[in-house]
Amino acid sequence: MLGKARLLKVYMGESERYKNKPLYQYLVHWFKEKGIGGVTVSRGIEGYGQDKILHTARFLELSSDLPMILEVIDVPEKIDPLIPEVCSIVPKGLVFTADIQVYKHGKE
Amino acid sequence: MLGKARLLKVYMGESERYKNKPLYQYLVHWFKEKGIGGVTVSRGIEGYGQDKILHTARFLELSSDLPMILEVIDVPEKIDPLIPEVCSIVPKGLVFTADIQVYKHGKE
Amino acid sequence: MLGKARLLKVYMGESERYKNKPLYQYLVHWFKEKGIGGVTVSRGIEGYGQDKILHTARFLELSSDLPMILEVIDVPEKIDPLIPEVCSIVPKGLVFTADIQVYKHGKE
Repeated sequence: MLGKARLLKVYMGESERYKNKPLYQYLVHWFKEKGIGGVTVSRGIEGYGQDKILHTARFLELSSDLPMILEVIDVPEKIDPLIPEVCSIVPKGLVFTADIQVYKHGKE
Repeated sequence: MLGKARLLKVYMGESERYKNKPLYQYLVHWFKEKGIGGVTVSRGIEGYGQDKILHTARFLELSSDLPMILEVIDVPEKIDPLIPEVCSIVPKGLVFTADIQVYKHGKE
Repeated sequence: MLGKARLLKVYMGESERYKNKPLYQYLVHWFKEKGIGGVTVSRGIEGYGQDKILHTARFLELSSDLPMILEVIDVPEKIDPLIPEVCSIVPKGLVFTADIQVYKHGKE
């Protein structure tokens, strides 16, 4: 997938679930099964989304629901057809893409 | 804010303060008050900026001043007018934008 | 470096080493020596790359090899000539660039 590629970013809450799994874990496996080249998950320490509710790691609470960020990378022909289904799996989060230029992917 | 949108990223030190608050917390509230669609804060583990001083989580120090990263997302018409004020609030950090394509934002 | 700039992102495993150092630490120093404007390192909590092996922080293992993400920012004339050498230093990771617009860099 060297050359022009697509970065897909998906933001969701850590506590969101899908089919009895944390949503972010479900998505990582889902992208892997679809043969997508690479996925990286990060946990934010604070944030808010469309509902304007601030989630933060500053207060120790059981349900802190911190932001989880997925970075998904592959060629546009593999990323773009998956976007509608990603949007329906992620009920409240943010989904966006950016155009990137890939110079190296594993041992390719 | 579906369609063409702007990602604004702001990098600063964890120990920087503004109006008696950690700078990154001040900014999250400030963007929220301005009605910006979404903000996510992450903490890096190492980094340097224009002053070329390396900050790292590898040595346990009281004032490690790790990098804090804000990702701010909304339409260009809402992000762009705020940039000059963001630059004046963030005295030493890095501020940049990238063009993105938003496919989902909350329940929209 | 205000104006059009380049974001270079490099993904690698936490346990990868280069010249007796963790690879990510080696790269931070290498970019600093090359005079690159700014570098930020983050640690992901889960991910997979070209070899499709899932690394995760969910299971406590000695060699969890979590994803490390470098964000490197400077003007294209300084970033682009370094890319071939970065690709050769990073044997298995992902290397990509994106075009950004820088509004502030330190006290500039």
